[in-house]
Amino acid sequence: MRALTFGAPEGLSLATGRPVPIIGPGEALIRPILAGVCSTDLEIAKGYMGFSGVLGHEFVGRVEKAPQSPQMEGKRVVGEINIPCGRCGRCHAGLGNHCATRSVLGIVNKDGVFADYFTLPISNLHLVPEEVADEEAVFTEPLAAAFRILEQVSPPPEARVAVLGVGRLGQLIARALAAEGLRVTAIARSLAKLDLLKNVQVNTALDGQMTERGIFPLVVDSTGTAEGIKRAMELVAPCGTIILKTTTATPAMPDLNRIVIDEIRVIGSRCGPFHTALMALKEKRVETTELIHEVMRLDQALEAMSLAAKPGVMKVLLKMND
Amino acid sequence: MRALTFGAPEGLSLATGRPVPIIGPGEALIRPILAGVCSTDLEIAKGYMGFSGVLGHEFVGRVEKAPQSPQMEGKRVVGEINIPCGRCGRCHAGLGNHCATRSVLGIVNKDGVFADYFTLPISNLHLVPEEVADEEAVFTEPLAAAFRILEQVSPPPEARVAVLGVGRLGQLIARALAAEGLRVTAIARSLAKLDLLKNVQVNTALDGQMTERGIFPLVVDSTGTAEGIKRAMELVAPCGTIILKTTTATPAMPDLNRIVIDEIRVIGSRCGPFHTALMALKEKRVETTELIHEVMRLDQALEAMSLAAKPGVMKVLLKMND
Repeated sequence: MRALTFGAPEGLSLATGRPVPIIGPGEALIRPILAGVCSTDLEIAKGYMGFSGVLGHEFVGRVEKAPQSPQMEGKRVVGEINIPCGRCGRCHAGLGNHCATRSVLGIVNKDGVFADYFTLPISNLHLVPEEVADEEAVFTEPLAAAFRILEQVSPPPEARVAVLGVGRLGQLIARALAAEGLRVTAIARSLAKLDLLKNVQVNTALDGQMTERGIFPLVVDSTGTAEGIKRAMELVAPCGTIILKTTTATPAMPDLNRIVIDEIRVIGSRCGPFHTALMALKEKRVETTELIHEVMRLDQALEAMSLAAKPGVMKVLLKMND
Repeated sequence: MRALTFGAPEGLSLATGRPVPIIGPGEALIRPILAGVCSTDLEIAKGYMGFSGVLGHEFVGRVEKAPQSPQMEGKRVVGEINIPCGRCGRCHAGLGNHCATRSVLGIVNKDGVFADYFTLPISNLHLVPEEVADEEAVFTEPLAAAFRILEQVSPPPEARVAVLGVGRLGQLIARALAAEGLRVTAIARSLAKLDLLKNVQVNTALDGQMTERGIFPLVVDSTGTAEGIKRAMELVAPCGTIILKTTTATPAMPDLNRIVIDEIRVIGSRCGPFHTALMALKEKRVETTELIHEVMRLDQALEAMSLAAKPGVMKVLLKMND
């Protein structure tokens, strides 16, 4: 089968003769329909995670085979990316997403979705409601990561929230929080990215033009840049919360003393609830398809990665079965 | 009157002819009975806060004059150290401790308690219950800072907590959290400091001997050192919380990526509830007097500051009216 693989030292390559993966216990074989290129894929392609194998973790697909759950065959699904061991203390405590020996689809010890086929445990899969188009469903994983924020904090209705950085993930965060009734101010350095939010109930501000400080009870750093945390510290109010979505090779040093003196909360935030994201898509509360920059073929996966790395480019999708 | 003052460039000095402070609107004139030397005083004496004036903010005293509340005269009191403006948005939102124009007793724009007299707003004062001795009451302010943690997080009963660093503040934090039923492990580099906890229901561990990582749902950094946050990150469990009590001139760089990947919460923590601290002292739930290293006279304030700065020295008190 075809697959976009990464490994050291050969780097990215488009394989054509890779064997179809073997279905493990409890797993399903899935044919992806659409897959999304995420910033994490771009980081992996730089070698940061030490991953080697098939890239990709955002997908909507169809179950091809599921020997232990044949009723799932033919179903359209999305899938959670963490594959916990299911046996350790953290797994038993409901922290499977933090299992120390977990594998992660296309990120840690598990071949991903930029291929004709991949496998995933049946327990990771969620059926996609009929009302949700493929082009929407493929956003489920990052949209769930956006909704994760509201599992971690409970701002009062109409609370003010600053979303710093409106790239691929920040766009979804701004949309998800606005859909939940929060008063979102999206702050970015690019007018073009802010313009993408013109149909969404959010305020937008060019970063250089925000002179107010210490005013937002909640600030989300989705800049993906080293300076994001420092900017978030300037914007957050005393006793306020900063949600950190950014991981970067060289983070800037935040002022830890200010965290103490102003009693700020800094909360790391990662993967989120698929069901919540699917419901928001089904009920058309979050519009995602306007974030699609281009749909390319799996054969064009190398070009798709290059395109996704360009400044200002939002979601690049791979249509797998063309 | 006598007073221990700090100012640039003259540094610390023991004044003798300083005028008794004028009582402002809503204020009381207070004669301190006992005052405690805190690490913050030592920092101020190094010039870090840009403060000039009378040092000191931990006290138990007696109200000498209170023109607008004469019923308070003669009463034994402790007092909150933040003096908010009372008029700004933060004050109206109940965040007076974070008022941007607040003064702070002996720390910001307000003469402190290492003197024969000082003033404080009546609204900052708390009556000391009869059952609480002067030698206990003088710990109210730092003990309140310890109890602040339980206003910010609500660990389940018997949750495991690591208290990193058991100096002056860490001792009170370990004692306060143990008194509330949490399973505290106090971790420090000094056996002598850990030995002070032998009569308290806590586990103790020499830092070098803790090889486990990622196991504590709650970790308090009260090391007062730059490395505290990094050590806390090693000990905290995924989705766990780090309470930052340490402010330091040159904090070490924590691994922000781990905050995101392990979804850790970092919460700054400062001043706390006086009432809770006084009740704990009244009900003898927290023992503090064994932390007293030495009681000295105000005339010895310079020596007291030097003594408090020595490694391993716990609380140095000044007995003011001797």
